Amino acid sequence: MTASRSWTARRDNKLERLRAASAFADGKVLDSARMVEALEAILRSGDRVALEGDNQKQADFLSRSLAEVSPEKVRDLHMLISSISRPEQIDVFETGVAKKIDFAYAGPQSLRVAQLLEDGQLEVGAIHTYVELYARMFVDLTPRVALVAAEKADRRGNLYTGANTEDTPTIVEACAFGGGIVVAQANEIVDELPRVDIPGDWVDLVVKADRPAAIEPLFTRDPRLITEQHILMAMLAIRGVYERHGVVSLNHGIGFNTAAVELLLPTYAERLGLKGQICKHWTLNPHPTLIPAIESGWVESVHCFGGEVGMEDYIAARSDVFFTGRDGSLRSNRVLCQLAGQYAVDMFIGATLQIDGDGNSSTVTSGRLAGFGGAPNMGHDPGGRRHASKAWLDMKTDPSPTARGKKLVVQMAETFQKGGVPTFVEELDAVGVGKAAGMPIAPVMIYGDDVSHVVTEEGVAYLYLAADEDERRAAIAAVAGVSPIGLRHDARRTDDLRAKGLVAYPEDLGVDPAEAKRSLLAARTIEDLVDWSGGLYRPPAKFRSF
Amino acid sequence: MTASRSWTARRDNKLERLRAASAFADGKVLDSARMVEALEAILRSGDRVALEGDNQKQADFLSRSLAEVSPEKVRDLHMLISSISRPEQIDVFETGVAKKIDFAYAGPQSLRVAQLLEDGQLEVGAIHTYVELYARMFVDLTPRVALVAAEKADRRGNLYTGANTEDTPTIVEACAFGGGIVVAQANEIVDELPRVDIPGDWVDLVVKADRPAAIEPLFTRDPRLITEQHILMAMLAIRGVYERHGVVSLNHGIGFNTAAVELLLPTYAERLGLKGQICKHWTLNPHPTLIPAIESGWVESVHCFGGEVGMEDYIAARSDVFFTGRDGSLRSNRVLCQLAGQYAVDMFIGATLQIDGDGNSSTVTSGRLAGFGGAPNMGHDPGGRRHASKAWLDMKTDPSPTARGKKLVVQMAETFQKGGVPTFVEELDAVGVGKAAGMPIAPVMIYGDDVSHVVTEEGVAYLYLAADEDERRAAIAAVAGVSPIGLRHDARRTDDLRAKGLVAYPEDLGVDPAEAKRSLLAARTIEDLVDWSGGLYRPPAKFRSF
Repeated sequence: MTASRSWTARRDNKLERLRAASAFADGKVLDSARMVEALEAILRSGDRVALEGDNQKQADFLSRSLAEVSPEKVRDLHMLISSISRPEQIDVFETGVAKKIDFAYAGPQSLRVAQLLEDGQLEVGAIHTYVELYARMFVDLTPRVALVAAEKADRRGNLYTGANTEDTPTIVEACAFGGGIVVAQANEIVDELPRVDIPGDWVDLVVKADRPAAIEPLFTRDPRLITEQHILMAMLAIRGVYERHGVVSLNHGIGFNTAAVELLLPTYAERLGLKGQICKHWTLNPHPTLIPAIESGWVESVHCFGGEVGMEDYIAARSDVFFTGRDGSLRSNRVLCQLAGQYAVDMFIGATLQIDGDGNSSTVTSGRLAGFGGAPNMGHDPGGRRHASKAWLDMKTDPSPTARGKKLVVQMAETFQKGGVPTFVEELDAVGVGKAAGMPIAPVMIYGDDVSHVVTEEGVAYLYLAADEDERRAAIAAVAGVSPIGLRHDARRTDDLRAKGLVAYPEDLGVDPAEAKRSLLAARTIEDLVDWSGGLYRPPAKFRSF
Repeated sequence: MTASRSWTARRDNKLERLRAASAFADGKVLDSARMVEALEAILRSGDRVALEGDNQKQADFLSRSLAEVSPEKVRDLHMLISSISRPEQIDVFETGVAKKIDFAYAGPQSLRVAQLLEDGQLEVGAIHTYVELYARMFVDLTPRVALVAAEKADRRGNLYTGANTEDTPTIVEACAFGGGIVVAQANEIVDELPRVDIPGDWVDLVVKADRPAAIEPLFTRDPRLITEQHILMAMLAIRGVYERHGVVSLNHGIGFNTAAVELLLPTYAERLGLKGQICKHWTLNPHPTLIPAIESGWVESVHCFGGEVGMEDYIAARSDVFFTGRDGSLRSNRVLCQLAGQYAVDMFIGATLQIDGDGNSSTVTSGRLAGFGGAPNMGHDPGGRRHASKAWLDMKTDPSPTARGKKLVVQMAETFQKGGVPTFVEELDAVGVGKAAGMPIAPVMIYGDDVSHVVTEEGVAYLYLAADEDERRAAIAAVAGVSPIGLRHDARRTDDLRAKGLVAYPEDLGVDPAEAKRSLLAARTIEDLVDWSGGLYRPPAKFRSF
């Protein structure tokens, strides 16, 4: 009954390609000057190729080399790029070298993605969340070739990913053990690595990049830009959500609202006696605005998706708080941090650009196929969670003996965005964008039925207490100000909702809006953050105004 | 503003402990004969200790050594053990060396756990699912010490975990980068590893175990024990679920029902012309009963949580299907396979011991605190999923523009268990067990609102089509036979549900129960599986009756 087919075709074919590439390599080390030829030797038309484009780190030497590959030699690649952020990642679709893409986020390149899609030059497999794209690499999207970025490599192929680990280990694992070819660019090829993050046995080829891999400081919020409105919302959130439910472990988005929360912990929240009661364990990138809370002893642990430019020395000096390697530098890991953010924390709180009357929200607002990133992975109630915490049990309103708690999923938004554009809308732009792009479902970021609270400058809506959809809509309307959704609300109904605890306004929470001043922030400038860090935080040039 | 406290206390304390342990080590290699003393040097009372007890692999040399540690020297440890399966893992609670435990599954030791809990000698942190326990290791349960198992280690601490990777890399990552101490037992200490799975930079100490780490063959189902009833249910599932929804990627539980499905693919399903349409991508341990489907060309890929005893050579010879390393052996990884099983597959299908009228199910049935394992991680609709597939979109019944698809979560159970005990019950035993143990919520394994289909020997209930809870309950009752729940069903209502497509009986699905014979199985004995494998599968002695 044994079949006569080959069962090692992938491995045999891989060895054949590596033999072809060996003309451009000394052992495992490729000649940087011949990278384009090497790629032409390694790649075959139609290959599925994971090109590391993370939230922050980009394998840009490899993506720029790929953009020079001749479409006569290699065509119709199927690209897997978690975060598309560089123009050459899209150029390859214009030349015909690539044809199909699966991705999770396309911020800066989203207009071009939409245009190429319309022109039929690009085919979208699906728009994923981060973890679901990696998950599929172990199921039906295993990459044939992975092009990744490390900080340092040695000649045996061992990699040091350093502070910005992000997705590298996961992509490499899927490709290496799936019989694919792993090529890593490194800023340096050295004899001795500070530590081995990825074993050389998993890596086929390394190459010295022409310049260090591009890293974006995406998680730095300048406290100067935090407004009194942000501060008011942060006060409402601290009293109405963090304090009320005893939120001990959490994830913060990168908005100014949550940056304000971080900067109010050592001042406002400290005065409320909340130190040690809330905000002890964090899953997030190393936000500089977290420094004052760390220095004031609020923070027990921080596990990170990736790093943040300028935070390296500070982190190395705070190993009791951050996950670090024996060399002292940060160890991050996007998949594991997403897992922690999904299953292990009490709360996800993030900002959004649009919310509809049912509480669905999206950052897709302008005909752009921006994608989801990782927010949906953490911004939902994980059905596979079984352990309880105070905050989680607080969300249990059903008296049934088989009822369970819920994760807190909090959407925090001003009722209007800049320029007077309402945040609360009748229909998300995402619905139209999805239709126009032929997507099978609308690109909703966080679904309303997962949202437990909405916080605006008007107050807090406790959606988990709503008896039905109608009450849920009324509670959202009650905090939506004079937006189209907010104008729907009926003052009498709102009084009733306040009495029932579904809506709380500042006075209901003991928050005095007059107190919402910038003087309440533990740091009001980047320079203050540097001071708090004892000079260890070294902000990138664009944030240095002092 | 810089604080005067130390921010490297964990690291300093770790180095102090390692210095103490160095008396029992040559470099990183501990003296096996002095393991108890070494543990007494490494551990401090109250430490949080991750002891590797996976589904299959057990760090038993370390757990047996821990059981000999003097309670005069080390007390009140807080143990993290994903799967408790050895008596000495519990003995330490009797001596006072350990006090608290967080776990995910306690199969063989569940009665003792319950007893010690009642006696106040053991405190349960929480009963987790697998991934949530690891997730918490990066948040608020970071281990101070990790005691793990590898197949081989070298003198620099590099580990080869081999086929049974399971949880080792995740536990080691949390502990090593959390400033903890990683101790690995290995079956052998060698000069050259077949491949490096975990870098030595992450491992502090290694020790040669007195005997190879215990590995259980948990995923081997002897085809001899598959009954005609299992075969009928498998036929119903294939036609009513797999074929109907086009289930391309999936996870199977370890029941005989799903083993029957695996063995019907090359026969019954092949005749239906389903090859290439369903069951191409799998996330599961290497079930021997999958061999005939693999050999018949049904299976494109299998990613595994762990390995299976006896499947080593077969897997090495089938690298196009399995994830393998450059040494040829299987690479498994529980966290990544769980992630794949949660986010990337169309369907989870598994057996259970009890189902209530709302479709909630549990394997807790006899006053035992058994726990959940990994089923809930895959057996729920992941709210963070955004990519579509045919099967997922099939579950979308809401016409709203912001509606989404759902994962298929299928519970497959005979209406009665062995000994005439009904599967369908008014109230899950889990409710009483949870109350008795003082658990904040009942230990429900899969929640009814996540279940899309129930398959019994009577037929299939399409719960995702139910308009409300009442219709859902009626559909469950219609396939629950003469169990207490089944007796509730009303024949006229059932006709209506069949007409509406909520319930399908064999004749509705074109399944002839008379065809449900053992002769339909592609393999009827373990020996048949060996034959299919061309002699590559080498079943453990307990399965060898030939």
